[in-house]
Amino acid sequence: MKIFIAEFIGTAVLVLIGCGSVVITGFAGASPVWFLAVALAFGLSVTAMAYGIGHVSGCHINPAVTIGAWVAGRLPGALVPGYIVAQFLGGLAGALILSAILGGKIGGFDVATAGLGQNGWGQGYGGGFGLGAAVLTELVGTFIFLVVILGSTSKAGITPVAGVAIGLTLAIIHITFIPVTGVSVNPARSFGPAVLVGGQALSQLWMFIIVPPIGAALAGLLFRTGVLEG
Amino acid sequence: MKIFIAEFIGTAVLVLIGCGSVVITGFAGASPVWFLAVALAFGLSVTAMAYGIGHVSGCHINPAVTIGAWVAGRLPGALVPGYIVAQFLGGLAGALILSAILGGKIGGFDVATAGLGQNGWGQGYGGGFGLGAAVLTELVGTFIFLVVILGSTSKAGITPVAGVAIGLTLAIIHITFIPVTGVSVNPARSFGPAVLVGGQALSQLWMFIIVPPIGAALAGLLFRTGVLEG
Amino acid sequence: MKIFIAEFIGTAVLVLIGCGSVVITGFAGASPVWFLAVALAFGLSVTAMAYGIGHVSGCHINPAVTIGAWVAGRLPGALVPGYIVAQFLGGLAGALILSAILGGKIGGFDVATAGLGQNGWGQGYGGGFGLGAAVLTELVGTFIFLVVILGSTSKAGITPVAGVAIGLTLAIIHITFIPVTGVSVNPARSFGPAVLVGGQALSQLWMFIIVPPIGAALAGLLFRTGVLEG
Amino acid sequence: MKIFIAEFIGTAVLVLIGCGSVVITGFAGASPVWFLAVALAFGLSVTAMAYGIGHVSGCHINPAVTIGAWVAGRLPGALVPGYIVAQFLGGLAGALILSAILGGKIGGFDVATAGLGQNGWGQGYGGGFGLGAAVLTELVGTFIFLVVILGSTSKAGITPVAGVAIGLTLAIIHITFIPVTGVSVNPARSFGPAVLVGGQALSQLWMFIIVPPIGAALAGLLFRTGVLEG
Repeated sequence: MKIFIAEFIGTAVLVLIGCGSVVITGFAGASPVWFLAVALAFGLSVTAMAYGIGHVSGCHINPAVTIGAWVAGRLPGALVPGYIVAQFLGGLAGALILSAILGGKIGGFDVATAGLGQNGWGQGYGGGFGLGAAVLTELVGTFIFLVVILGSTSKAGITPVAGVAIGLTLAIIHITFIPVTGVSVNPARSFGPAVLVGGQALSQLWMFIIVPPIGAALAGLLFRTGVLEG
Repeated sequence: MKIFIAEFIGTAVLVLIGCGSVVITGFAGASPVWFLAVALAFGLSVTAMAYGIGHVSGCHINPAVTIGAWVAGRLPGALVPGYIVAQFLGGLAGALILSAILGGKIGGFDVATAGLGQNGWGQGYGGGFGLGAAVLTELVGTFIFLVVILGSTSKAGITPVAGVAIGLTLAIIHITFIPVTGVSVNPARSFGPAVLVGGQALSQLWMFIIVPPIGAALAGLLFRTGVLEG
Repeated sequence: MKIFIAEFIGTAVLVLIGCGSVVITGFAGASPVWFLAVALAFGLSVTAMAYGIGHVSGCHINPAVTIGAWVAGRLPGALVPGYIVAQFLGGLAGALILSAILGGKIGGFDVATAGLGQNGWGQGYGGGFGLGAAVLTELVGTFIFLVVILGSTSKAGITPVAGVAIGLTLAIIHITFIPVTGVSVNPARSFGPAVLVGGQALSQLWMFIIVPPIGAALAGLLFRTGVLEG
Repeated sequence: MKIFIAEFIGTAVLVLIGCGSVVITGFAGASPVWFLAVALAFGLSVTAMAYGIGHVSGCHINPAVTIGAWVAGRLPGALVPGYIVAQFLGGLAGALILSAILGGKIGGFDVATAGLGQNGWGQGYGGGFGLGAAVLTELVGTFIFLVVILGSTSKAGITPVAGVAIGLTLAIIHITFIPVTGVSVNPARSFGPAVLVGGQALSQLWMFIIVPPIGAALAGLLFRTGVLEG
């Protein structure tokens, strides 16, 4: 149970801080340069939680990470469903807390216009990339993310700096790919905002639930088969 | 006594560097993008002091951290008042040094207009968020901060990287929440500038003294009760 | 073989993330300030891979690093050709994945105009620096990079933080020298984009293949001769 | 002799990368936001060299650090002059390499206008602060820098992350104080550019040679007397 509470808290923090950096500071005059700050907010939320709850649950806070770890043989299958449920609930909780804070803006806040930092693709989203580019980005992005996670916590490569390296990896994936999908690589991170915002975010949610776990499983296979196990 | 001198120095550095990044560089044409630099100035001041004075006092430099550590059972209650007094005095000292430097600007510096990086909320402050959003932000922000502090220094999770993780956590809390309250999560950091600036900063100081310790105590309880103790 | 697969993956990630940060986010309104994000994308890609594949191959992902390590006496000469071939193929793969994602932009993407983050010099490239400045920059930049790589992994100086220090070093080399050559210090990083973009990038490729290994070898000599071996 | 070669190289790198970030990228349209990149360039140059040459010389690359370490009882007095000479020569070498690169700009580069990233104060420099503010800034800034250096390498507080913490400390001192003096806290860093640029930079050099060592000595005393020795 402690494991699932930790995952719930960690995922909520990731969504609150990450998505919050997109919309709260938008009020104060965000610019494309702000992308860097958003990238650090998402990435370093993982670093923060790695050191805050990692000793309890390993800090997956991402169903794709849980699946990748399971494929790599690092996690018993029996724990997978519990991790994932806790992560989805945490993602929703983070989006709800963010909504509550935004609701306190004097004069009101229009979620329909500003959104909640939801993921997406296509005309009118970010740089206007199609579904193919979006799928490729999420697939490759999650693969890279998992290589770092599994490598930095492997028997041969384990390091006390893992939480920093993993968070910075997520940050640079954001730096490069925000214009394509907003960067998910995490079904639970996409889930929370999409449920509250609805519309296109909800109708495109399927991709962010299906694709990242595939990229994660590919990386997991490289470790399970010993290719990247040192 | 060494403990309290260390806490005094550390809190002064936090206020001088953090609040200084808001007002000194404002002269040279700050922009919303500068928020990122301000966030790093506050966050990495804690990292700096963690490695500079942490071996002496644990580097709380924040009454909320001291209270959270005490609730978590990590600090004897007898030391709490001394820590807090040293922190408030340090916060004031940092604001005074900052004032002295600003006073050296050729042509003068108008504290009444530019402020000293004080915290606040409401119409005319940052993004214009109300008291409810401000309270929720400080409560959740301090909770997150303490989860990382207590987790990264817990028996099961202790790491030489703790000071980096803790500082980066404070940085991303700033990235996301500067428009709401300017981000305090630290009564002593709010105290110094408010006393020197007066006006609204002083009349709103009560919230930054009351709310962060509550968020810290909630996190402390999760560790005391073993939920996040691994 | 595992070593070469790891080097292939690592170099592909470096080019995809690094060069991708230049062109993908360009759509959303990049500015000179974005240089900082580009610098972090290149630098922290190395950090990411250091912890992801470093336990397999040492994470050179750069022929200049391989040559420098060989000169320093850290790598058997028999492995050098395999490392370098894997790195060049990886650099090409990274550029191909980047092209595929860019090709998914709605309305199309003109590589001839926007490029693929290729290196270069002269009138019309970056700040308009001549060949002499470009050679000096790549020579000195690679020398600095190798001093940190070889120092942080030397017997006397080895540290679990090496991957972070090395990546941040590459980042600051970019911060300072992007306007001169775009910063290569890595023949494989220059190779991928140049082959796909052609034109001036291809005709200037020779310099980025010749000069960085010389800078790396100079640093390697300082370690082989014991000057910087502690 | 190895110690002095290491200090020479390290100081040259600091000046080349740090001052270079000010002037080279200025060509591409720097803005106040670029301050953050400059701050990281200076700060992380120290991190880079800490892991590159730290195992040889301790990586002072700054006469104020050498003096502070000596006052703290960490360095034999007989080594002090050698360290300082090597650092001044290194600072000059870094400025000379930077000049050479800038001289390669097509159409020429006017050092008299753009400078070499020299320190200074007063009307027309940065935010226009007077001598008093400049002295206070350099004094306090160097004091903070040395507290982190001496604390993170003290017996009770030594950490493999010291090089990261020290570099990030220098970065945030820059974030906050660039408008006052450009931030020296290092006589050798001020020396190189001032000698080549001349004029006001040279006539104000005395302050950057005298004040930082005093701030460093004050911090050194806190450690020598045991106040911050844990």
